[in-house]
Amino acid sequence: MPEYSIVEELEPLFNPRSVAVIGATSNWNKWGFSTFSCALDGFGGSVYPVNNKREAVLGHKAFEWVTDIPGEVDLAMFVIPASGVPGAMENCVAKKVKAAVIISAGFAETGEEGRKLQDEVLEIARKGGIRFVGPNCMGFWSASSKLKGFMWPMPIKAGQLAFVTQGGNIGGAVAAAAYEREIGFHRYVSCGCAADIQIEDFVEYFGRDPEVKVILTYIEGLASGERFIEKVGKVTAKKPVVVLKPGKTEAAAKAIRAHSGALAGHDEIYEEAFRKAGVIRTESPEELLDVAIGFLTQPLPRGRNVAITTPGGSYGVLCADYCASLGLNVIKLPEEIVNDFNDIFPSRWSHGNPVDPAGDRNIIAYLKAPEALVKLDEVDSLIFMGFGSFSGLGSTFAQMSDLSSAEYPAIPQTTAASPANPDEPIQSFSSLFGYVFGGGDSKAIDEVARLVSLVVGSGETDFLNDLSQSTTTPRDQSEMLTQAANHFIGALILHWSQSYHKPIVTTTFSETTFYLNLKRGLYYSYPTPQRAAKVLAKLVQYREYLEREA
Amino acid sequence: MPEYSIVEELEPLFNPRSVAVIGATSNWNKWGFSTFSCALDGFGGSVYPVNNKREAVLGHKAFEWVTDIPGEVDLAMFVIPASGVPGAMENCVAKKVKAAVIISAGFAETGEEGRKLQDEVLEIARKGGIRFVGPNCMGFWSASSKLKGFMWPMPIKAGQLAFVTQGGNIGGAVAAAAYEREIGFHRYVSCGCAADIQIEDFVEYFGRDPEVKVILTYIEGLASGERFIEKVGKVTAKKPVVVLKPGKTEAAAKAIRAHSGALAGHDEIYEEAFRKAGVIRTESPEELLDVAIGFLTQPLPRGRNVAITTPGGSYGVLCADYCASLGLNVIKLPEEIVNDFNDIFPSRWSHGNPVDPAGDRNIIAYLKAPEALVKLDEVDSLIFMGFGSFSGLGSTFAQMSDLSSAEYPAIPQTTAASPANPDEPIQSFSSLFGYVFGGGDSKAIDEVARLVSLVVGSGETDFLNDLSQSTTTPRDQSEMLTQAANHFIGALILHWSQSYHKPIVTTTFSETTFYLNLKRGLYYSYPTPQRAAKVLAKLVQYREYLEREA
Repeated sequence: MPEYSIVEELEPLFNPRSVAVIGATSNWNKWGFSTFSCALDGFGGSVYPVNNKREAVLGHKAFEWVTDIPGEVDLAMFVIPASGVPGAMENCVAKKVKAAVIISAGFAETGEEGRKLQDEVLEIARKGGIRFVGPNCMGFWSASSKLKGFMWPMPIKAGQLAFVTQGGNIGGAVAAAAYEREIGFHRYVSCGCAADIQIEDFVEYFGRDPEVKVILTYIEGLASGERFIEKVGKVTAKKPVVVLKPGKTEAAAKAIRAHSGALAGHDEIYEEAFRKAGVIRTESPEELLDVAIGFLTQPLPRGRNVAITTPGGSYGVLCADYCASLGLNVIKLPEEIVNDFNDIFPSRWSHGNPVDPAGDRNIIAYLKAPEALVKLDEVDSLIFMGFGSFSGLGSTFAQMSDLSSAEYPAIPQTTAASPANPDEPIQSFSSLFGYVFGGGDSKAIDEVARLVSLVVGSGETDFLNDLSQSTTTPRDQSEMLTQAANHFIGALILHWSQSYHKPIVTTTFSETTFYLNLKRGLYYSYPTPQRAAKVLAKLVQYREYLEREA
Repeated sequence: MPEYSIVEELEPLFNPRSVAVIGATSNWNKWGFSTFSCALDGFGGSVYPVNNKREAVLGHKAFEWVTDIPGEVDLAMFVIPASGVPGAMENCVAKKVKAAVIISAGFAETGEEGRKLQDEVLEIARKGGIRFVGPNCMGFWSASSKLKGFMWPMPIKAGQLAFVTQGGNIGGAVAAAAYEREIGFHRYVSCGCAADIQIEDFVEYFGRDPEVKVILTYIEGLASGERFIEKVGKVTAKKPVVVLKPGKTEAAAKAIRAHSGALAGHDEIYEEAFRKAGVIRTESPEELLDVAIGFLTQPLPRGRNVAITTPGGSYGVLCADYCASLGLNVIKLPEEIVNDFNDIFPSRWSHGNPVDPAGDRNIIAYLKAPEALVKLDEVDSLIFMGFGSFSGLGSTFAQMSDLSSAEYPAIPQTTAASPANPDEPIQSFSSLFGYVFGGGDSKAIDEVARLVSLVVGSGETDFLNDLSQSTTTPRDQSEMLTQAANHFIGALILHWSQSYHKPIVTTTFSETTFYLNLKRGLYYSYPTPQRAAKVLAKLVQYREYLEREA
């Protein structure tokens, strides 16, 4: 094949002006129904149903052949039985269609017969100058054209990730998990058997697109490891590529042959190819997304030195164990900072790393730890285990509401939404927050005011509104306070991370993630210390790769 | 120490008639407030506040000393500074208190001074015949007395698990995760520094309690490995004991010394002790609970042979890889069953294990796979990856509601809540369900009717009501159908697992768990194939231990 520019070649796929859905149908129980419906949902160009048995599909005039369509067709999607694909592809060539997506299954993944059929389709497309995705795939998404080229209504939104996956279901699950966290994709491709356009072609293409910040890929088998190393190695010099590749066991290799028709190959060979290409390997779909979000939200750490803060001693133990097991260096704290912490924490505090105030009720004191640690030269990154305690504190209020006692605390009044003085919301927030989380101590209130000023100075003010909601019961109040605490501390952590150019990875403890779309970026909390530590280790791995290659 | 019966010794702790909270206060910003509030919440006996500065606490008459309390005190809880504990313990001895929980921190975990103080308290209690939990702990829960002896309002309910944890926060997170899944504890103990009652004492006690089905423990360090092996080894012969023990790294060992004051010891020694005692070791709090739920909900597998069914090929690949990596045997399917599946699946199906119908829209056909596999002699257990597709099908309906087409499917009418004929709900459910999930095929409807009869015959009929809700929009209808599908299939899987006495572990794909409290037991789905495979491997490990020891 002559040299080509991947950007030009894939332009008609990702930015088509018109799409033909071959096999579109009104029969809701067929893939041609859901595929056609998806293509209609959001795309700005023309969508033509191709169906040789119907006059119209879902109210759109249907065409027997692609060549019957008046005007140009940039992209054709195939949702017909495998045996009909070669003929329909010939017809697409005649129509001068530029790109195709073959959703239809029954090709290389089914054995020798299917492979022959696939080769036949490939030859027709090559001769006709049609580049295609699939066969045996679940379709694709392009944010720039708002085209949901899926066989199934997958939830997806625009964003800074790009994903090419050889597994439609794994891709779909990762995309759905991202969607739940309001994280989007600029491009998403389920490539199935990848007969024509290879995984490394997509990675090369994503690498050249400035809208894409992080690239994800799920691989079952590559046609050429050398080509992958050559093309992907150039991308990883510029942006991270995160991979999930199963097949360490013979059981998985067999399953891969039946699924995508790929040869899983010896895992050592893949491991070596990934190392050479500078690709970051993960072990599960969850980790794939975790690490991608890490690259999206955190600066790269300068080295392996990590500090940990925890409001719960045992969680600190686990986190230190995970970090050290993954080759991170849980540093010994410098004497000066131990002395500083002696002044602010109860004498029972852990006196080391992880920093654990050992049940101190004054959470404002705990908030002094992240900045003190992250500004140390010895610390390359911080794991801040923060969110157990704040939702916990909410429950004390809820508990109070259940008691028949008159001894409720007298909570300072918050200010209404339109204050007379611009400092008023800051003072009001600091009084309430310092009172509730710092035990009413005036020093705590002053400290909160200082932290609030930092966050407001960084451009983030929305959290101040959290406390101007009017609440009547302690239970409402506790929810309001929990929300304000999460919002304020998230903004504070993001501010410190951006100011000191160091990763600050946070955790929730609760098997759920937590995120905030703040003005200066995405703040994201991982569900467990194990997942947080893994992400940090991968950030270090990529940084070290870049340094070796530089 | 003379011989004793652990059941008698711990009776006053778990079934006290009266509790004194030493340090109870109305100051909402102190642990004495939340501890006293928790003790008041649900416990049927008397709760006395002990506070030498106040006349009353939250409306209850306060006492300066425990000895001032009229009537007997079975249990004392300590929430005062460490330095005051020896004096208060002397006072408890004078009062003939029988058991204590020392929440106060500042003992062995803080170093030599603290260890001396702890030894002093231990000596006073021993002489006075008081057994105690802690110090430096977060309290305990006893379902039989409904006593929440916590320092913090932890969500917990009664159930069949028992947990002793050396980490209050890890224990709390596991208990909260269990609570969210409506899984409860008969006993729960945060043991902190475990100066008096040791972890193995609690395990022995739980082992003798018929209400407890599965025992969980988080260990930072043991006082005597031999004592642990001796006592716990007797329990594991009767019921499973699942353990989380960090400290493989020096970083964790240091953190453990600062947290619970324990010596983490060499990991190989612990590994050997756990092997001898027949304890099942896990690597994270999530896995600890996953495995406990596995023991609670599944029969033990006879061996390592596993079959997998998946509606998504790539998820099947991952699941096979995880299983094989963990030493499970992903079997080659017997030829007869491959032939059987050839008759019911499209020709592109995987033709092997994992069984993947490769995008077959007829989900009723997929439902034939679990029973066909689980009844095979070659199959010891099944992983059924089921719940991706059913919520997915819901989305097709939702999509239809967005289309301006008149071509909606004509869905059969469901029956009202009080049918004239007892078979009517079955027929009605089968028609609708077979139509929607089987493409309107009459064979599919007959097959659903057969499966519905199986479930109804096992005593489960609630799912039939899911479809008698009146719905107006396709979106409502899709939610109703998804719920009915999950409910019906969950009941079916539980029926097959119980009928064939083999584990059928299911997954959701979506990072969330799913559970049903059915008449014949708990049905539970794991969030990922990795977690499902790990649970299955641990069930096999325990079964093999029992066989070796038998």
